[in-house]
Amino acid sequence: MTDRSILVLTTGGTIDKNYFDALSEYQIVDSGIPALLKEARVALPFRVVEVCRKDSLELSEADRIAIAKAAREAPEAQIVITHGTDTMTETAKVLAAEVPGKTIVLTGALSPARFAETDAPFNLGMAFAAAQTCPPGVWIAMSGQVFDGLKVRKDREAGRFVGVEPKCT
Amino acid sequence: MTDRSILVLTTGGTIDKNYFDALSEYQIVDSGIPALLKEARVALPFRVVEVCRKDSLELSEADRIAIAKAAREAPEAQIVITHGTDTMTETAKVLAAEVPGKTIVLTGALSPARFAETDAPFNLGMAFAAAQTCPPGVWIAMSGQVFDGLKVRKDREAGRFVGVEPKCT
Amino acid sequence: MTDRSILVLTTGGTIDKNYFDALSEYQIVDSGIPALLKEARVALPFRVVEVCRKDSLELSEADRIAIAKAAREAPEAQIVITHGTDTMTETAKVLAAEVPGKTIVLTGALSPARFAETDAPFNLGMAFAAAQTCPPGVWIAMSGQVFDGLKVRKDREAGRFVGVEPKCT
Amino acid sequence: MTDRSILVLTTGGTIDKNYFDALSEYQIVDSGIPALLKEARVALPFRVVEVCRKDSLELSEADRIAIAKAAREAPEAQIVITHGTDTMTETAKVLAAEVPGKTIVLTGALSPARFAETDAPFNLGMAFAAAQTCPPGVWIAMSGQVFDGLKVRKDREAGRFVGVEPKCT
Repeated sequence: MTDRSILVLTTGGTIDKNYFDALSEYQIVDSGIPALLKEARVALPFRVVEVCRKDSLELSEADRIAIAKAAREAPEAQIVITHGTDTMTETAKVLAAEVPGKTIVLTGALSPARFAETDAPFNLGMAFAAAQTCPPGVWIAMSGQVFDGLKVRKDREAGRFVGVEPKCT
Repeated sequence: MTDRSILVLTTGGTIDKNYFDALSEYQIVDSGIPALLKEARVALPFRVVEVCRKDSLELSEADRIAIAKAAREAPEAQIVITHGTDTMTETAKVLAAEVPGKTIVLTGALSPARFAETDAPFNLGMAFAAAQTCPPGVWIAMSGQVFDGLKVRKDREAGRFVGVEPKCT
Repeated sequence: MTDRSILVLTTGGTIDKNYFDALSEYQIVDSGIPALLKEARVALPFRVVEVCRKDSLELSEADRIAIAKAAREAPEAQIVITHGTDTMTETAKVLAAEVPGKTIVLTGALSPARFAETDAPFNLGMAFAAAQTCPPGVWIAMSGQVFDGLKVRKDREAGRFVGVEPKCT
Repeated sequence: MTDRSILVLTTGGTIDKNYFDALSEYQIVDSGIPALLKEARVALPFRVVEVCRKDSLELSEADRIAIAKAAREAPEAQIVITHGTDTMTETAKVLAAEVPGKTIVLTGALSPARFAETDAPFNLGMAFAAAQTCPPGVWIAMSGQVFDGLKVRKDREAGRFVGVEPKCT
């Protein structure tokens, strides 16, 4: 694969939650990311690989190491990772330590992609662009901004990420 | 306004087309962009300003000069312009000549934002990210890619943009 | 087929209009009705048959006769017909004359089914229910009401149907 | 109010469930039914009154009596009740005993109205039509059918209602 390809790793999170009436609850299902990318008419070559299907509050250190391993061992140099927003910054730290030399952009959503009104497609678009335009490092694309992945936190009550902007020029 | 603010100029295009049953035809209406940005939970400061409401096949040189003027005279250094896709590259040339020193990202959509399935939010997300991460210059965010705005063309039949990737690192 | 089955005849209309960027216009496409019925989790047996794909302003008398013929010759006694709203009442007259002894409900939409916000699924639901609960005759389900198909007209400017309520009990 | 008006009583259920990221769970919120009726371009006079916001597994006998009281004391003779699907048939029994002389149609959805793909608008359309076309009694509009409210049950695993069709002609 050329360095033009983008790898998308899916790990779960709200973005992929669906409601199951028979269970009276929401569960993470097979990722809606491929469908979103098709709807977005993405013509750039890409792959989508599922690493796990977890709410990020349930990710263990071993899970984060597995996500980092998938990123490190892939041929692609530009990687988007969809992830639950609650512990996205934790995974960012592990990625920064474990995966040098690649542009990695974490994103997710506060509303499931299956909702009529959702931040999912916009966030995925931000991540896709940042994966192409940012220098190697770990970034987070949420709340309309591209953040340095190590200098941002989630303000859970406000439903937004706050932090330091990237210096990529 | 700080240089963290993003200016969004809307000019029309498919992204803002709506169907009017009483007229048996489509028309470009008040922009759906503000609603899309709200749905995307964008927390970065931004303004949305309508320049015109035209299918890009109907834009005159005077219209493109007006778009460039709005970009040049605004205080913001990071600008997203939503635009019809058919002559987006024409406007890019005028912007490159008329608006130095700013990061300008053109985007649009092949399906109206009002559709259930549309590339509009994803493209807008790409543009928002590119406006923050690309160096000064004119860029086009379409078909899942961020292009150098002067090195890209629209393949109308294929429904995609093809061109040269940006060198922003 | 038992008399529990419902036949859905599709003829075109706004309900099935889609926007084609490459042509800069809306066109009627393969019907979205099967997808709508699947999304609605309809468990009642039904068939969907396309009769034509026309804006109802373009339907000729021969077209209306063909629609009536399809309704008359089908084994089902309960029929829903999706149709452009502009001349729905014309087709209703032909059906009343040509197809005795069946419950036929015409419906359509003022916004294409492909739109995020559309009256299409609600109208289709009204028609499905009326096909089961109304006595033989021709009915029109639009604007939240079930009308006697021969005592209703479309107020184009107001975007609604006005008429006489059904007497089916 | 004339007997042309329709009263919509909302009680909760999946149809009105929304996902709250800050709580990592779903909750029933202010009803989406008014918005759905507006999107459906309903021109018939109607009122929407919230009785409660409960998953139907949590409804008590007192809740069902309260729903019946609201139906009985209203001036309208045609009533739609949106309700969780799990115990819809229980409420139907109470309504049949407590509210004579009115046409009451219960409906709900297996997917929240806020989803991009949902049975909510179709089911609401079925109920609106049945409220106008069925004789006095209690009916259930789900799974594409209008059932006698006392001769139907929910098959939870199959995600559909099964029962006896109405005899309303």
